[in-house]
Amino acid sequence: MNITLADAEKIITAAKKKAKAIDTKMNIAVVDAGANLLAFARMDGAWLGSLDISIKKAKTARFFDMNTGAIGELSQPGGSLYNIENSNNGLITFPGGVPLKNSAGDVVGAIGVSGSAVENDHAVAEAGAKAL
Amino acid sequence: MNITLADAEKIITAAKKKAKAIDTKMNIAVVDAGANLLAFARMDGAWLGSLDISIKKAKTARFFDMNTGAIGELSQPGGSLYNIENSNNGLITFPGGVPLKNSAGDVVGAIGVSGSAVENDHAVAEAGAKAL
Amino acid sequence: MNITLADAEKIITAAKKKAKAIDTKMNIAVVDAGANLLAFARMDGAWLGSLDISIKKAKTARFFDMNTGAIGELSQPGGSLYNIENSNNGLITFPGGVPLKNSAGDVVGAIGVSGSAVENDHAVAEAGAKAL
Amino acid sequence: MNITLADAEKIITAAKKKAKAIDTKMNIAVVDAGANLLAFARMDGAWLGSLDISIKKAKTARFFDMNTGAIGELSQPGGSLYNIENSNNGLITFPGGVPLKNSAGDVVGAIGVSGSAVENDHAVAEAGAKAL
Repeated sequence: MNITLADAEKIITAAKKKAKAIDTKMNIAVVDAGANLLAFARMDGAWLGSLDISIKKAKTARFFDMNTGAIGELSQPGGSLYNIENSNNGLITFPGGVPLKNSAGDVVGAIGVSGSAVENDHAVAEAGAKAL
Repeated sequence: MNITLADAEKIITAAKKKAKAIDTKMNIAVVDAGANLLAFARMDGAWLGSLDISIKKAKTARFFDMNTGAIGELSQPGGSLYNIENSNNGLITFPGGVPLKNSAGDVVGAIGVSGSAVENDHAVAEAGAKAL
Repeated sequence: MNITLADAEKIITAAKKKAKAIDTKMNIAVVDAGANLLAFARMDGAWLGSLDISIKKAKTARFFDMNTGAIGELSQPGGSLYNIENSNNGLITFPGGVPLKNSAGDVVGAIGVSGSAVENDHAVAEAGAKAL
Repeated sequence: MNITLADAEKIITAAKKKAKAIDTKMNIAVVDAGANLLAFARMDGAWLGSLDISIKKAKTARFFDMNTGAIGELSQPGGSLYNIENSNNGLITFPGGVPLKNSAGDVVGAIGVSGSAVENDHAVAEAGAKAL
C-alpha cells in the first residue's frame, strides 16, 4: 500500500520526458502514502519558486486524494472551501498535483509538478502518474 | 466552566456514529475553553489533510464562539473580515466547527469535523455537540 | 502495515489506565506509520504545555523508529547528534515516545506521552504500546 | 558555476550505491549553489525523520562551504558558534553534509545524507561528492 523509490524514479523519468516534449522546465516532487517526500528533481533552469509549489502540490493531492485543481474550484471566494489553502502549512490548489494509485485503485502517494502554465504542469503530472 | 476528557470522548463517539450513519470518514477534534486540543480521532481512511483542518475548525469556533461557517460569510472579498484566515496561525472559516455549550449556555469548548462535503462536516459536528 | 483507529483507542485506554495507577495526568498522542496524528487525549488537569510535547514525542519515535530517550542520549553537547532537535519542526528527545510494532515486528506508528517526570511518561507510553 | 540535474542524479546514484555497500538506508539531498534543493531520494525503509535532516545538512554545508561536522565542533556549549543551529530555519551541524566543488575548486552545491550513524552518513555523502 505504498510506493517504492524505484517507482518514484520511474515516475520522475516519465515526467521529465513529457516536460521536455512540451519544451518546459519543471520541478517534480513525489510523496508517499504518508504525504512525505520520496523523490524530487528540479530541471535545469526551472523556476526556483516552483520548488516549494511542486512539493505542496504533491502533498495537497495526497492529503485529499484528488487532483489539486479540483480543490481550487471549491476554494474560490464564495466557494465551499474558501481559503482552505491556509491549512496544513500551506496548500496549493491549482492544477499540477495528481494522486498516484496502485493497480487495486488504492492511493499510494502523489506527484506534484510546477514550472509552467498550470495546464502544462498538470499534463506533466499526469504523464508521471501513468508511469506507475 | 470547562469540559472534561470524558465529555470529549462522548462527543467524539457521537460524532463517529453520525459519520458512519451518513457513510463518511471524518477527522474529529475537540478543544476546551482555552481553545487547546482535548481529544482527537481520525477515522480509518479519512483524508490526511483534514487532520489539520478539523483542529483549525475547532479552534476557530472557540476563538469566536460561533459556527465556523458564520465567519466565512464575513471573510469573503469585500466582506468586513476579509482574509481573517491569516490570523492565529491559520483559521478555517467554512462549515464544520461548532461551539460546545454547557447547560447554562456558556461556551466551554468546540468541535471541529473535516473529511467530506462541508454540509456533512457540519452535520457530524452538530451531532457531536448535541452529545454534551 | 498501519494501525487502525480502534488500535489507537485501545492504546490510549491502556495508557490512561496506567497513568491513573501511578497517579499522574497525561497528554497521550498516537501517530500512524506516516507519523500523522491518529488519536489524542488530554487527561483532566494535565499540563497544557505537554499537549505539543506528547505529539512531538510520538512523531520523533516514528521518525527514527526508536524510543525518544535513546535519541536524547546522542543529542547532548559533544554527542554525535547534538541539536538534532532543531530538525523536523522540533523534536522531543527525552523519554516518553515509543514506537508501535505489529506482530511481524514492523513499526506501524508510535505513542507519545507527556505530563509528569520522564520516567513516568515512558512507563505510561510503554503500557500503551503493549496494548497493541 | 552551478551543478546540473544530471550531475545531481549522478551524485545520488553514487551515494545510493555506497549506502547499499555498507548496508544502510539513506535520505540523500543535493542542493545547488543557491542552497536550493535540486534532487532528493529516500531509500525504501529509511527513517522518515532523516528526510528533513538530509536537506538541512545539504543546506548547512552550502551555507558555510564546509563539512557540517566542522561547524558542530564550534557550536558546542562554550564554543564560538554556540547554538548557531537556531539560524536559517534550523541547521544540522553533525556529520553528513559535504560541499560539492567543480574542477576549479569552486563550491557549486552540497550533498546531505541522513539515515544511519553519522560516520556512515558522512561516508555516503563523501562517495556522492566524489562522483561530481
